Amino acid sequence: MPLWLSPCEVGLLAGLPAEDYPDGHPTNGSEDWAMSVAAAEIDTVLAELSALIGDRVSTAAAVREHHGKDESWHHPELPDAVCFPQSTEEVAEIVKICARHRTPIIPYGTGTSLEAHVMAPHGGICIDMSQMNAVLEVNVEDLDCTVQPGVTRKQLNEYLRDTGLFFPIDPGADASLGGMTATRASGTNAVRYGTMRENVLALTVVLPDGRIIKTSRRARKSAAGYDLTRLYVGSEGTLGVITEVTLRLYGIPEAISSAVVSFPDIEGAVNTVIMTIQSGIPIARIELLDEVQMDAVNKYSGLDYPVQPTLFLEFHGTEAGVREQAEMVSALCGEFGGGDFQWTTKTEERNKLWQARHDAAYACKALRSGCEIWATDVCVPISRLTECILETKKDLERSSLIAPIVGHVGDGNFHLAFVLDLDNPAELKEADELNDRLVMRALAMGGTCTGEHGVGIGKKKFLQAEHGEAVSVMRTLKMALDPQNIMNPGKIVTV
Amino acid sequence: MPLWLSPCEVGLLAGLPAEDYPDGHPTNGSEDWAMSVAAAEIDTVLAELSALIGDRVSTAAAVREHHGKDESWHHPELPDAVCFPQSTEEVAEIVKICARHRTPIIPYGTGTSLEAHVMAPHGGICIDMSQMNAVLEVNVEDLDCTVQPGVTRKQLNEYLRDTGLFFPIDPGADASLGGMTATRASGTNAVRYGTMRENVLALTVVLPDGRIIKTSRRARKSAAGYDLTRLYVGSEGTLGVITEVTLRLYGIPEAISSAVVSFPDIEGAVNTVIMTIQSGIPIARIELLDEVQMDAVNKYSGLDYPVQPTLFLEFHGTEAGVREQAEMVSALCGEFGGGDFQWTTKTEERNKLWQARHDAAYACKALRSGCEIWATDVCVPISRLTECILETKKDLERSSLIAPIVGHVGDGNFHLAFVLDLDNPAELKEADELNDRLVMRALAMGGTCTGEHGVGIGKKKFLQAEHGEAVSVMRTLKMALDPQNIMNPGKIVTV
Repeated sequence: MPLWLSPCEVGLLAGLPAEDYPDGHPTNGSEDWAMSVAAAEIDTVLAELSALIGDRVSTAAAVREHHGKDESWHHPELPDAVCFPQSTEEVAEIVKICARHRTPIIPYGTGTSLEAHVMAPHGGICIDMSQMNAVLEVNVEDLDCTVQPGVTRKQLNEYLRDTGLFFPIDPGADASLGGMTATRASGTNAVRYGTMRENVLALTVVLPDGRIIKTSRRARKSAAGYDLTRLYVGSEGTLGVITEVTLRLYGIPEAISSAVVSFPDIEGAVNTVIMTIQSGIPIARIELLDEVQMDAVNKYSGLDYPVQPTLFLEFHGTEAGVREQAEMVSALCGEFGGGDFQWTTKTEERNKLWQARHDAAYACKALRSGCEIWATDVCVPISRLTECILETKKDLERSSLIAPIVGHVGDGNFHLAFVLDLDNPAELKEADELNDRLVMRALAMGGTCTGEHGVGIGKKKFLQAEHGEAVSVMRTLKMALDPQNIMNPGKIVTV
Repeated sequence: MPLWLSPCEVGLLAGLPAEDYPDGHPTNGSEDWAMSVAAAEIDTVLAELSALIGDRVSTAAAVREHHGKDESWHHPELPDAVCFPQSTEEVAEIVKICARHRTPIIPYGTGTSLEAHVMAPHGGICIDMSQMNAVLEVNVEDLDCTVQPGVTRKQLNEYLRDTGLFFPIDPGADASLGGMTATRASGTNAVRYGTMRENVLALTVVLPDGRIIKTSRRARKSAAGYDLTRLYVGSEGTLGVITEVTLRLYGIPEAISSAVVSFPDIEGAVNTVIMTIQSGIPIARIELLDEVQMDAVNKYSGLDYPVQPTLFLEFHGTEAGVREQAEMVSALCGEFGGGDFQWTTKTEERNKLWQARHDAAYACKALRSGCEIWATDVCVPISRLTECILETKKDLERSSLIAPIVGHVGDGNFHLAFVLDLDNPAELKEADELNDRLVMRALAMGGTCTGEHGVGIGKKKFLQAEHGEAVSVMRTLKMALDPQNIMNPGKIVTV
């Protein structure tokens, strides 16, 4: 049963003209692409694709169902077929076929996106990159590598193990590096190592007409023209298909230590974070879990952490450097009411400690059987973080929903995990309204509606409120680079 | 006397079709904007500008001459008039007037660019941002600030002195932050702190039709749509006028130490750099001066450094951290034949040490009286840096030119400073040919024609060889955002 929710008040709340929010399911987003592809046309496309890649194009229901949905609360919408190319040249030929027949193209990594990025509201051809999963080149001296887009982050780090290097960006899921690039992913390590924005050096992209470009070269920096690399990082498949990614790598730190510390209140925890960042301590991870989340983690993982706002920390550096960082942060924790600073440098204990953090999403799901998670994603200037979280918790107190909070607080980014029965429209409506209030609060504080999950379909309604006239520039770019609007249509901007 | 040089062989060498390189001075770059503005039209524009900003528009010869030239070897080309706006709204009105009359607009910071960015080959209106020089906002807790584009980097750091924060990007010249943004500047600190690409959080931009946009918000990270901020960083005034810049700031390190160490050969110096970077030592500056440059510096500044390839280093961190970094790098220097590692933490000695580095350009100029500098700017993957420098030095041995080398070697970026008599066409031709060979060598090694100076007019001829089909995407973006081609026409791409 499709879930119709979010009527046009939400659009109005977000400052959108009413006509941008017709009644109906927000995930349809179809106002900009009136026609889906006619059945006859699709048959021609399929025949041409079969001639090109044989049985690596599929229309099987199970395959289409698997590809019409991500890990979000959004209702699935299926592509007409799924292709499994094995080279940039094959992707280019697939795109040319689709372009000739004005057929939508939806690039697909691992399907772990959270804003309906891979859904096919207009049907069309899903391009699954999982068979393009080779590490093409590792340049140890230059601390970089080039991979095909289907390589996942864990696969890359496994491959790199003997080089002494690693790729730090960790969004939680074992996502593909193509997908992480397309959604400008980040996660727990971003406070030290940056996001995909800072760590993609160059891309190979198949344009919407099938031409192939390289956006940049391997040099660490360049001032040679418009920054096409950054234009494609975060473009969510709407401007072309990413077929190679060149990434920065880092030396595995000589020493790593982790710590957990509980606070009597959110303010103490967040103030510790602010002081840590301001002091220039190069902390690698600094994650907040609120008391609701800690309770869930304890129950799920059989742990006995205090049910209080808690920071999970990690330090990277030399032996002496890590010790010094830990001592400095421990002192700051003390100043802000933090309890015992439990820290460890042993790999096994570290892994156990972080497992609790990584299990947060599963711990949330376990709070109610048969339920799913809707993760919000605002990011605010860190000086407003306490206020933003506290006001949001007041909203939650007045609501009937369970929503633990986890945050990449060093960046000002935090997630509510609404634990929902997706078959209950009233719950979805309540979550939607709370999320609207949360986003508008974050925007009023100079923040963004999405720190790391991307726009997809779920955040489109906030884009005008966040960017104002700049949305028209985004629309201009989209129309200039994809004049037929075949690349992942309906995502990011309406044209 | 204008200096006609670089005939179309250069374009051919760079892989360009001959028609892109008509005979004539490459700095004319005028093939894309056939007509300059008719005299009658300019009179109307000037009348409208006077009505808007009174005597803050000037057609005085001295003012136009000052604004028609940067610090490069390029021959000046003058705008028809220069405006001095005092607000974003005034800039928007100026742009609207120019747009109505299809009159070129050239944004101007401090005129310290190095590839003819501010020259007006088609005449038009120069917008000098020097009266928009206010620091608008400093958010100490968030480590960010917002400035008008005419604020210079030294002015900002002076303003920040009591906050404990600083802005690290240092291209040498006391450039304006608007100009540094527009050219994607970097310099000595980039190896640790990144370039303007990594340090601009958001921009206010006046579009080529006079609309005003904000490209992003103050949040540290965002996945909310296309990365307009990065599109405008490095766009060199060709897509709009930057009128506000939001920047990342950093805490002034608790300890800073500097060091100088000489090597018997370039290989030893560069290998030390590679190992330093690979070891993850968070060095703040690591600069190479070759023996020619060291000789020039000794003579100019009355010093007695060994006339050998030399690294200038700087470490930022805690007292203990800085000591540890210095010891680690000192050990690496020893492994690669480096001499005595002279280091200091005293501010006065540090400043004296870095003064020698900062005086490098003046020291070059002092080598020949009445001469000017033409600075090259390639950047290569660090593994190719030794080879690139050594092959270039072989070229220099066969030439009649003097060209000391300085390099931001941690990034793989180095500059030859040709010391030239600009009235001698043979010398200019020789420099041009050497630069062509240098750029093509760097490109063959996966590098870029410009690490930090930008394209302007001087590097346009290499863009096709560097980016191939991606140049057509840049052209598409330019035409979409500036369909009249009035924004700094003739720079970056030909449309």
